Amino acid sequence: MMPYLTEKFGNPSSIYSYGRETKMAIENARRSVSRLLHCNPGEIFFTSGGTESSNTAIHAAVTNLGCKHIITSPIEHHATLHTVEHLAKTGAITANYVKLTDKGHIDQTHLEELLSTAPGKTLVTLMHANNEIGNLLPLKNVGQLCQKYNALFHCDMVQTIGHYLVNLQDVHIHFASSAGHKFHGPKGVGILYINEEIKITPYIHGGSQERNMRAGTENIYGIIGYAKALELATERYEHDSQYILGLKNYMADKLKQEIPGVIFNGDYNGSSLYTVLNVGFLVTDKSEMLLFNLDMAGICVSGGSACSSGANSVSHVIQALYKDNTINMVPIRFSFSRNNTKDEVDIVIEKLKSLL
Amino acid sequence: MMPYLTEKFGNPSSIYSYGRETKMAIENARRSVSRLLHCNPGEIFFTSGGTESSNTAIHAAVTNLGCKHIITSPIEHHATLHTVEHLAKTGAITANYVKLTDKGHIDQTHLEELLSTAPGKTLVTLMHANNEIGNLLPLKNVGQLCQKYNALFHCDMVQTIGHYLVNLQDVHIHFASSAGHKFHGPKGVGILYINEEIKITPYIHGGSQERNMRAGTENIYGIIGYAKALELATERYEHDSQYILGLKNYMADKLKQEIPGVIFNGDYNGSSLYTVLNVGFLVTDKSEMLLFNLDMAGICVSGGSACSSGANSVSHVIQALYKDNTINMVPIRFSFSRNNTKDEVDIVIEKLKSLL
Repeated sequence: MMPYLTEKFGNPSSIYSYGRETKMAIENARRSVSRLLHCNPGEIFFTSGGTESSNTAIHAAVTNLGCKHIITSPIEHHATLHTVEHLAKTGAITANYVKLTDKGHIDQTHLEELLSTAPGKTLVTLMHANNEIGNLLPLKNVGQLCQKYNALFHCDMVQTIGHYLVNLQDVHIHFASSAGHKFHGPKGVGILYINEEIKITPYIHGGSQERNMRAGTENIYGIIGYAKALELATERYEHDSQYILGLKNYMADKLKQEIPGVIFNGDYNGSSLYTVLNVGFLVTDKSEMLLFNLDMAGICVSGGSACSSGANSVSHVIQALYKDNTINMVPIRFSFSRNNTKDEVDIVIEKLKSLL
Repeated sequence: MMPYLTEKFGNPSSIYSYGRETKMAIENARRSVSRLLHCNPGEIFFTSGGTESSNTAIHAAVTNLGCKHIITSPIEHHATLHTVEHLAKTGAITANYVKLTDKGHIDQTHLEELLSTAPGKTLVTLMHANNEIGNLLPLKNVGQLCQKYNALFHCDMVQTIGHYLVNLQDVHIHFASSAGHKFHGPKGVGILYINEEIKITPYIHGGSQERNMRAGTENIYGIIGYAKALELATERYEHDSQYILGLKNYMADKLKQEIPGVIFNGDYNGSSLYTVLNVGFLVTDKSEMLLFNLDMAGICVSGGSACSSGANSVSHVIQALYKDNTINMVPIRFSFSRNNTKDEVDIVIEKLKSLL
């Protein structure tokens, strides 16, 4: 990224050499990203992040592609849920929420039921992996169901692109969202994949950047950083994913051994992200101060999604997982990266023991 | 910006210390920006750039604030024009375009006429300075007219914030847009000023960032860079503006002396940006290759706005300036910054002489 922060300032939309240089860099980034995700460069659009990508896709499905109905789930990220709620409130769409299984997976029978009875052209928007509990969507199956019922499919892949080897050609999918900072890339940049068969108008109107699809002078160093981070994440996937899964499993085992009454939210040892472990602690005077006390000890964990933290209530994901029953535990999400170690897990376990 | 690209990665929405550190940095940036623009921190919202800011303001005026009519001008940036056209196409608004004087200024009598006969609640969206010809809007007068007719006022200040000492308290204004890369700051970041009396809903839905007004994980280093660049630009204003105006006037004089038949588009030596000189060259075989040949010589100039270059036709601004008469000149925009010198102007003049 550094050359684009220190020397290469040309506006990529300028036709002189100084601009062509940065334009070329963006197009090289696009080619690299499309190669890694197994799609065409013309299907990759750079945005300001996953949230803008999901907003763009969902709005386009309604505004440009005739969808008057949206099927989603109660555990989607707010970038999806709040956009769907907004569209429902304006009367542009009706919405259904697919039921969850006990482990927090999408109930595929219910999804098919919703698709088969959908009133008119439908968008299905479901996340590839849940950011709080880690559950993975059976992407191919959902794609096939959408194909069967001629529905459009948007997938929030913010948690998975950069963490798995994603092959977009292999899935029946129309839109996918991703954000750079989820895999050690920069904040403020993401992509929207738009299947080449889909034609939409921009969500952000103005200049002719991104082939008239996303107006605004490009965040060049962000785009360069996104592409490089995805390249590194892909190269390191085999090693890192095994290593990080090892940390997650090690921590789960240790918690079971050392902390009485812990449970795990979501399908933690089944179809689940290797980067997330959502733990439920017994409710006591001590556990309710756990987030605060872990922070004091320099241990960074979260109660829900960062995007809605600050709120003291249990997250909408945990609520939905327990079908709105009273939540009798303190949920805490532990996240793992290639930079964590088993020693750090041991320190966290010791700290938990002493705090509880 | 560097600490936020190398060490300080905490998600500002996370409640642990690592996140609070970056949150604090964003809030300090907001305070600094608001102090420099003479408004409240609560009136500054960080966005992905000027285009998103203008889209947000114009949509909010229609969606949240009841505007069914928009008054704009034919020489606005495409971020404004295409947004207005889009809203007109959907039937959400009607639009009027205020006439221009011969020098390309807003015809204030016509603006008042349009305001006094506007059908219902109206948004006026006019740019503070035109990016191609440099003409400056009489900001206070336009604000007063909007106040008189109870219209909302959005001002695209992308060309002026960071180039003038802007006092937002001094103007009757509801929304203002700005972009970091216009004053030596980073690309991919901007602000939207929203007057505290105005309550709108987000354009990009999702997380609760920017006090629920702009969802998406923050481009922290961009925000830090925006605030720092605005601080430096403000400190340097007296010196830099005089120096750059000197370059512009020097070049205008030299062109008049050395290049037969040159004209200047817009009110170049009147109420005009000190950073832009839009020159019309006589149409000859040679002048039509001028952009190309200047580029070959390492001189970066443009035919219109970077945001719509690539297109070979004369820009919509120049067309509107000449009231759609046939354009008998080759318009070229020369831009000046604190990093340019008189020696460079001399080199450009010599090159122009030899090319023509």
